[in-house]
Amino acid sequence: MKWVIKMNKSLEILDKSMELRAPKGTRDFLPQEMVKRQFVVDTIRKIYERYGFEPLDTPVFEDWDVLKVKSGEEAKNQIYYFKDKSNRELGLRFDLTVGMARVVAENPELPKPFKRYMIDKAWRYEDISKGRYREFVQADIDTIGVTGMIADAECVACIVSALSELGLKDLTIRMNNRKLLNLLIDELGIAEKKEAVMRAMDKLDKIGEEGVIEELKKVATPRNVERITEFAKGKFKLAGSEEAIAELEEIKKLLKLFDVKAKVVIDYSLVRGLGYYTGPIFEVMYGGYKKTVAGGGRYDGLIGIYGKEALPATGMSIGVDRVTEILDEAGLFENAGVGKTNVECFVAAVKKEQLEKAIEISQNLREAGIKCAIDLAGKNLSKNMEYCNSKGMQKMIIVGPKDLQESKVTVRDMKSGEEKKVKITELTKFLKT
Amino acid sequence: MKWVIKMNKSLEILDKSMELRAPKGTRDFLPQEMVKRQFVVDTIRKIYERYGFEPLDTPVFEDWDVLKVKSGEEAKNQIYYFKDKSNRELGLRFDLTVGMARVVAENPELPKPFKRYMIDKAWRYEDISKGRYREFVQADIDTIGVTGMIADAECVACIVSALSELGLKDLTIRMNNRKLLNLLIDELGIAEKKEAVMRAMDKLDKIGEEGVIEELKKVATPRNVERITEFAKGKFKLAGSEEAIAELEEIKKLLKLFDVKAKVVIDYSLVRGLGYYTGPIFEVMYGGYKKTVAGGGRYDGLIGIYGKEALPATGMSIGVDRVTEILDEAGLFENAGVGKTNVECFVAAVKKEQLEKAIEISQNLREAGIKCAIDLAGKNLSKNMEYCNSKGMQKMIIVGPKDLQESKVTVRDMKSGEEKKVKITELTKFLKT
Repeated sequence: MKWVIKMNKSLEILDKSMELRAPKGTRDFLPQEMVKRQFVVDTIRKIYERYGFEPLDTPVFEDWDVLKVKSGEEAKNQIYYFKDKSNRELGLRFDLTVGMARVVAENPELPKPFKRYMIDKAWRYEDISKGRYREFVQADIDTIGVTGMIADAECVACIVSALSELGLKDLTIRMNNRKLLNLLIDELGIAEKKEAVMRAMDKLDKIGEEGVIEELKKVATPRNVERITEFAKGKFKLAGSEEAIAELEEIKKLLKLFDVKAKVVIDYSLVRGLGYYTGPIFEVMYGGYKKTVAGGGRYDGLIGIYGKEALPATGMSIGVDRVTEILDEAGLFENAGVGKTNVECFVAAVKKEQLEKAIEISQNLREAGIKCAIDLAGKNLSKNMEYCNSKGMQKMIIVGPKDLQESKVTVRDMKSGEEKKVKITELTKFLKT
Repeated sequence: MKWVIKMNKSLEILDKSMELRAPKGTRDFLPQEMVKRQFVVDTIRKIYERYGFEPLDTPVFEDWDVLKVKSGEEAKNQIYYFKDKSNRELGLRFDLTVGMARVVAENPELPKPFKRYMIDKAWRYEDISKGRYREFVQADIDTIGVTGMIADAECVACIVSALSELGLKDLTIRMNNRKLLNLLIDELGIAEKKEAVMRAMDKLDKIGEEGVIEELKKVATPRNVERITEFAKGKFKLAGSEEAIAELEEIKKLLKLFDVKAKVVIDYSLVRGLGYYTGPIFEVMYGGYKKTVAGGGRYDGLIGIYGKEALPATGMSIGVDRVTEILDEAGLFENAGVGKTNVECFVAAVKKEQLEKAIEISQNLREAGIKCAIDLAGKNLSKNMEYCNSKGMQKMIIVGPKDLQESKVTVRDMKSGEEKKVKITELTKFLKT
């Protein structure tokens, strides 16, 4: 905690005309934005814990060797790469899965199933012109060590439960099975075009069916483009697809048992990037906004890359920034009672003679669990009211000489302007109800 | 969320004999460690919010121009420095103050006082041989815009309240005033030696009085070494020190008004690094361990460096890693009821015929707010008990065919081995009491 600064030198270094701001592609969260994000994160965490997922934390950066294995050559261009003072190659994590996979591989003694959650930041050097951020928050759950579809279904149930708890009710789960996509590629005999085909199919949301067809034409014969399109619409029967279809049907059945309150749709056009998925994949859309708010799937191959033991795995992730934006646009924070601040009340002495009593009162409120600020600047009453209003604090507790003679204070409701005299001994109870 | 991986290529890249681990100087937190840290962080946050501090979040990296201003030349050697893909110079934050100071300077419209908290990671390329970590968690509060000592006192009160809530009761607040140190340097006429003298004094905890004297001898005359030593012991009266002493006395008085339950000691040997402090400085020690668990002070000069407006500021910080270690060593997590896991119970079907009912039961428990895992792997009863024990789960709910005929389940207490048959309709109530 010891830290060096040379004030005079610093003043020389800093060009005062320079604009100081958060680095390109990142954002600050001022208190009134932060209370929203905290509400989202706290709610998600509450539900994740109810589903028996346990917290895990890994460093924000990983050895480059760990990152490059999962990211592949292309994605390296998006990673914040650096070296430490001993020339070790490092990089900021680009998702929360990579650290988890390393930890699971590194600690084979961890009892399985291993169910972990992590809600934290990750970083990618994204194209910000597309409205993406380079620092973003993800809320991940993963279940390691279970081959059965019940693990996938539980993850989906947990995600839907978390989103519902946040107020997002009109949810649709789209699902597909990577095994079907693999069968398709095999059937068409275009293994060497697999990535190009998947990349094209993956753009459906962005460029529409015709756009996808145009893209496909670049890499596939007209006959194959037709068959791929038919497949995406569920009209093309693949030989040997029984197992993959059965998995999806089983998940559908399980989602009913888990009492999942969302529409479930099998959508053969779903790809979810070139990713590392090996089985069922999912995307959760919020109806009103037709935006993907969560996604994930089964990736039975990943952990085996890191460790000696291959372990089945499935997981889902909520995009916290996206969800926060949607709740904001839909006015759902108001519904949930999330205001501009968490601070419940502001205690102000009328004159400095009452400061001692004001401190005592605020300490008692804090002791009772009430979030309470106190006038530290010795402002007058009207300035303090202005301050309360600008901060969005709902109640002001005015500690004045006359009231104190009756062992009372005045509680002002900042919205209505209504004032009430309350006995100090009854203040906590009054504020709590 | 789209991400690229080429499994086959990855397999080629990865040398399987290579040891994968967290980067040097950083740590993973497995669930049983993480529940401890979460308890610490959640408790601190609860108290910080009660004191009216509001959350703020800033990116984990800052533009190099922002970092270098506060860090000074020397500390640059400890910063993880890197460039983004557009060659922008960036660095991981080395504390939580630098981002806050930038935000406050950048947003002059923020109502003052501005009271913010932030509990998050920071990074320094520390010497790990000294038991330091390169990734660590700090819990900061800062009050911006108040000149009066009440802001300093409130910060100290809040920190002590948070530490007490964690179970650390035997606390001592050491305080000093940087103004006194400045007067001393002036009085001795050794302005050019200021840093060297402060650096030497700052080592008292590490190298003891004799060590400090040896260090001082290298930079000061014997007469001055004597005077510095006397000053540190409070025996050397400085001319013009009335204001600085009065500030400390006022804080002492205010700490009583805030009903702070800690010993308060004025300690003229306290320096707190070469830092940016300009007034009262504080360190909070936990008695049993004689370790600094929190520290801070007034820094009226910093924000003016970043912005157009000079703003008074004072703040404190708890070292979350240190506090977690102490609570662990002192066995205080047990006292607080923090076990190996947050998961309260584990639901297991005896045979797969009961799985459907087991899912229904666990969903009902989750709905009622109980943290509940379910057997996803279809293990037998003894394997499931093993699993519960290894995870530290306290209760196992066994869903068997005979019990179900009476609409009951068996609840097993994993510690005592005691089993009880409970009606399914009464299960939630039973588990909650």
